Amino acid sequence: MTDAAALFEDHRATLDAAVDATRTRAYYSAFNESPSPRVYGEDAAAEGLAAFESWRGRAFSVDVPGAEGTIATEKSPFGFDLDVSYPRMEVDGLDVLLPAATAGLAAFRDAGPQARAGVCLEILHRLHGRIFELANAVQHTSGQAFVMAFQAGGAHALDRALEAVAYAYAEMTRTPATVVWEKPGRGEPLRMEKTFTAVPRGVSLVIGCNTFPTWNSYPGLFASLACGNPVVVKPHPRAVLPLAITVQVAQEVLAEAGFDPHLVTLAAEDPADGLAAVLALRPEVRLIDFTGSNAFGEWLETNARQAVVFTEKAGVNTVVVDSTDSFAAMCRNLAFSLALYTGQMCTAPQNLYLPADGIDTDEGRKSVAEVADGIGAALGTLLGDDARAVELLGGVVNDGVLERLEAAGSRGKVYVESRAVRHPAFEGALVRTPTLVGLTAADAEVYESECFGPVAYLIETAGTAESVSLFRSTVMEHGAMTASVYSTSPDVLAAMRSAALDAGVALSENLTGGVFVNQSAAFSDFHGTGANPAANSSYTDTAYVAPRFRMVQARRHL
Amino acid sequence: MTDAAALFEDHRATLDAAVDATRTRAYYSAFNESPSPRVYGEDAAAEGLAAFESWRGRAFSVDVPGAEGTIATEKSPFGFDLDVSYPRMEVDGLDVLLPAATAGLAAFRDAGPQARAGVCLEILHRLHGRIFELANAVQHTSGQAFVMAFQAGGAHALDRALEAVAYAYAEMTRTPATVVWEKPGRGEPLRMEKTFTAVPRGVSLVIGCNTFPTWNSYPGLFASLACGNPVVVKPHPRAVLPLAITVQVAQEVLAEAGFDPHLVTLAAEDPADGLAAVLALRPEVRLIDFTGSNAFGEWLETNARQAVVFTEKAGVNTVVVDSTDSFAAMCRNLAFSLALYTGQMCTAPQNLYLPADGIDTDEGRKSVAEVADGIGAALGTLLGDDARAVELLGGVVNDGVLERLEAAGSRGKVYVESRAVRHPAFEGALVRTPTLVGLTAADAEVYESECFGPVAYLIETAGTAESVSLFRSTVMEHGAMTASVYSTSPDVLAAMRSAALDAGVALSENLTGGVFVNQSAAFSDFHGTGANPAANSSYTDTAYVAPRFRMVQARRHL
Repeated sequence: MTDAAALFEDHRATLDAAVDATRTRAYYSAFNESPSPRVYGEDAAAEGLAAFESWRGRAFSVDVPGAEGTIATEKSPFGFDLDVSYPRMEVDGLDVLLPAATAGLAAFRDAGPQARAGVCLEILHRLHGRIFELANAVQHTSGQAFVMAFQAGGAHALDRALEAVAYAYAEMTRTPATVVWEKPGRGEPLRMEKTFTAVPRGVSLVIGCNTFPTWNSYPGLFASLACGNPVVVKPHPRAVLPLAITVQVAQEVLAEAGFDPHLVTLAAEDPADGLAAVLALRPEVRLIDFTGSNAFGEWLETNARQAVVFTEKAGVNTVVVDSTDSFAAMCRNLAFSLALYTGQMCTAPQNLYLPADGIDTDEGRKSVAEVADGIGAALGTLLGDDARAVELLGGVVNDGVLERLEAAGSRGKVYVESRAVRHPAFEGALVRTPTLVGLTAADAEVYESECFGPVAYLIETAGTAESVSLFRSTVMEHGAMTASVYSTSPDVLAAMRSAALDAGVALSENLTGGVFVNQSAAFSDFHGTGANPAANSSYTDTAYVAPRFRMVQARRHL
Repeated sequence: MTDAAALFEDHRATLDAAVDATRTRAYYSAFNESPSPRVYGEDAAAEGLAAFESWRGRAFSVDVPGAEGTIATEKSPFGFDLDVSYPRMEVDGLDVLLPAATAGLAAFRDAGPQARAGVCLEILHRLHGRIFELANAVQHTSGQAFVMAFQAGGAHALDRALEAVAYAYAEMTRTPATVVWEKPGRGEPLRMEKTFTAVPRGVSLVIGCNTFPTWNSYPGLFASLACGNPVVVKPHPRAVLPLAITVQVAQEVLAEAGFDPHLVTLAAEDPADGLAAVLALRPEVRLIDFTGSNAFGEWLETNARQAVVFTEKAGVNTVVVDSTDSFAAMCRNLAFSLALYTGQMCTAPQNLYLPADGIDTDEGRKSVAEVADGIGAALGTLLGDDARAVELLGGVVNDGVLERLEAAGSRGKVYVESRAVRHPAFEGALVRTPTLVGLTAADAEVYESECFGPVAYLIETAGTAESVSLFRSTVMEHGAMTASVYSTSPDVLAAMRSAALDAGVALSENLTGGVFVNQSAAFSDFHGTGANPAANSSYTDTAYVAPRFRMVQARRHL
């Protein structure tokens, strides 16, 4: 048995550094994002792949009270069935699962914030030890290319988890565990001893998504667990393995530290069962973290009244192109953002507004068609070679993306056509390059809704003032996870900053180098704001952790 | 014009001390609770009374866009009409009021957390300068006796407001305004400048109550304003004046500091208009703070989906009496808690559980009847003299309290009868002493709902184990703002602490001196937990302020 206090001491320096980073918001990372053998050792990649392969065709070992039989639902976007089977949770099983989940709550609560942080950090540490296995699992469920799966699905997900633990720990320990209160008076002072205990809310339901099974689930999972809440993880049926590995590690660490392993459980379902909607309304469930569609996200916000609901839904990410002193670099940066993971990121840009009469650049005035050509040329350079292209694009995650891509061309003028890419290693992989479609400001019915996947619109406006105004109104009404602007004019930049504050969306200005609008850095960049309809919360701020526990006090005279 | 930056500097030391107190939770107060002339000067009391009297029969001066005509709705529980008239807000006027409220939002947002904290602290400072006027206004709307109105309605309300500003300020400035982010790489590091802006959510609606018009409204009002949200104050129709004075001062300070005075407005209504329910569903309203009935609180939580809703509703406050080494002091302490403000506090104890076979005390074994006699005798000592009694009891706030008091006797065995007290100064005042009614554990249908007012139940159980168990289950199901225990047994105290954590309610242990279960000290005691049905939030913790703003960032290469 591992002592939770010892785990806390093992990881204390990391936690302190993480808490400090949340306050400075300077660069910090605890998990190296490079899959290089120089960092992780010569055998790590092969061992991780072998570990991933070993699960295929097998029953995954994870302990789920109330599960009956097994279910296998995963198909790699690279063209094969995973055929990993998991304990199957059905609606009837919830009456067993939920009491089992809460059985260990009081002991975990009473262990205190340090013990819980120690447990959480040990889980992250052991997941880090399985990062190549996790990367393969993320690759073959999300369709992310390997390096991205390693980074976003592995190192960055672990960093986001650590960030959530850091916020939760800082907030729980903001109030001292005990204090002597002494009120001066005419005679003897009144003296009391007061104790303060962070009390979890109850069961936390984490509903995973297909595209970022770890990155989008870890913040809620670890914030809730650090605050003492039992966590039921309901993975997307097409992306179970990364979270099954996570639950397996969590149960192992909890048990070794003397806590009930069922404080973290996996609810894998047959998608026909619609388990999430039933789970979400159970009175035991007091916290819900969801990433996915607007429809289900809004349903949760409206109906799961017994819970605090954190959602990340869809939005319309916008780029306002006004002018640039680095035309080629701007086109390269935009092309990379459009191509990365086939535009299947909630942060990928969709709407590029620019004046119908073109923009000023370091290469002279550029018409709309010339801007489109510039982006098209940059896409060509990035994606011209199939073997390199697949490492940026990854695979198409589902048929819906393909259908939207195929329909996009009919909506406007096709500046850049999508093409099918042949994956040299996976014959069955479905790989597509992005399309760029020309619209005008009048085509609001097209560009005001999210077309999730590799579709971007180049939208002609009457000028930058209209671009900014459309940006503001579209985001206020339809939401956005990201926004960016290209301009050499201080006035335009000021107007965009102001519009971004009004619309409540993070702004990237003149990105021309190795930072892309669709990427956010844990500990420094907030992901989502909660201030526009695309998300009601942010990874990670205090509002994301503070409602996950309550402070309960006792006081007595001294 | 007063510069907001100068206001911040004026009050910076107070704010720093307040933020520090929220972290140590040791004793702190910025506003002296003693109405003594030695503290406030020889003339302060008379001047405050005169200022209060000067409003009677007059139109109160406060600027409310969209108001039409006036309305006067207040009657002192001490027996006279206030006859102060206020601008009347009706449903039609909201289309004027709400745009006016938000007109100044962007400028107030852009001024930043320090400027807004400066404005808030200057408002508190000026309200402190009118504390005797405020105390009279609170007395003659709530029915609190003068000293209590001065303390709870004046000094303590100002402390709670300062506490809310301190939490909001600390949370907004937890993230730096700007940071340089530098990510090391193989070549040149990636360097970016990032800026972070706290962005308010939108209009904040504060719905006041009759009994604590300032104390219960100030935390939400000042937390929202500090975060940049325009605040519409909807007072209880019977307790308008204290909040009208507050809005008047807020408008004065805002205007002097160059901000739009309509960032704080008063929505006084004819109660027949049901304005709160309409206001609460307006899309502009993004935050709601409410104190009052379960019915309307739950309606708000269910229906005002566009807003974050903070509620304090009703509960069943419990005392578990197991044993004591200070029988007389216990009885005195309980009697004071039952008598204070005629039991019209959301924190007043109602259910006193004790074993049917009595308790061990320093005066030997005491039967249930002897415990009742002890409390009755202590009440007699406290309230035997009318002139002294009225200064503790104050007046009955409304007819509902009187009706519940009159019906209470029929529910069980009356151990202590209520009596009418004649107020020596106010002939029309309605003053009553508390009643103590005996029940058994079987009378759940009586003691499981709140009987707001001067009614307490002495409930016989099979023993302390049953008392603790009833405490836990009743609070989990019906909520509570406070709980207390009397026991000399470490095991019983441990069981009660554990039950209080399970039930999510603050516990006071063996109060026998000058601290009472119904009183909470700002900066040290949390009021409410948000962990049981009586309230979904707490004065004040971070969860109470963090959702009132969102952090929006911009980033650019350096």
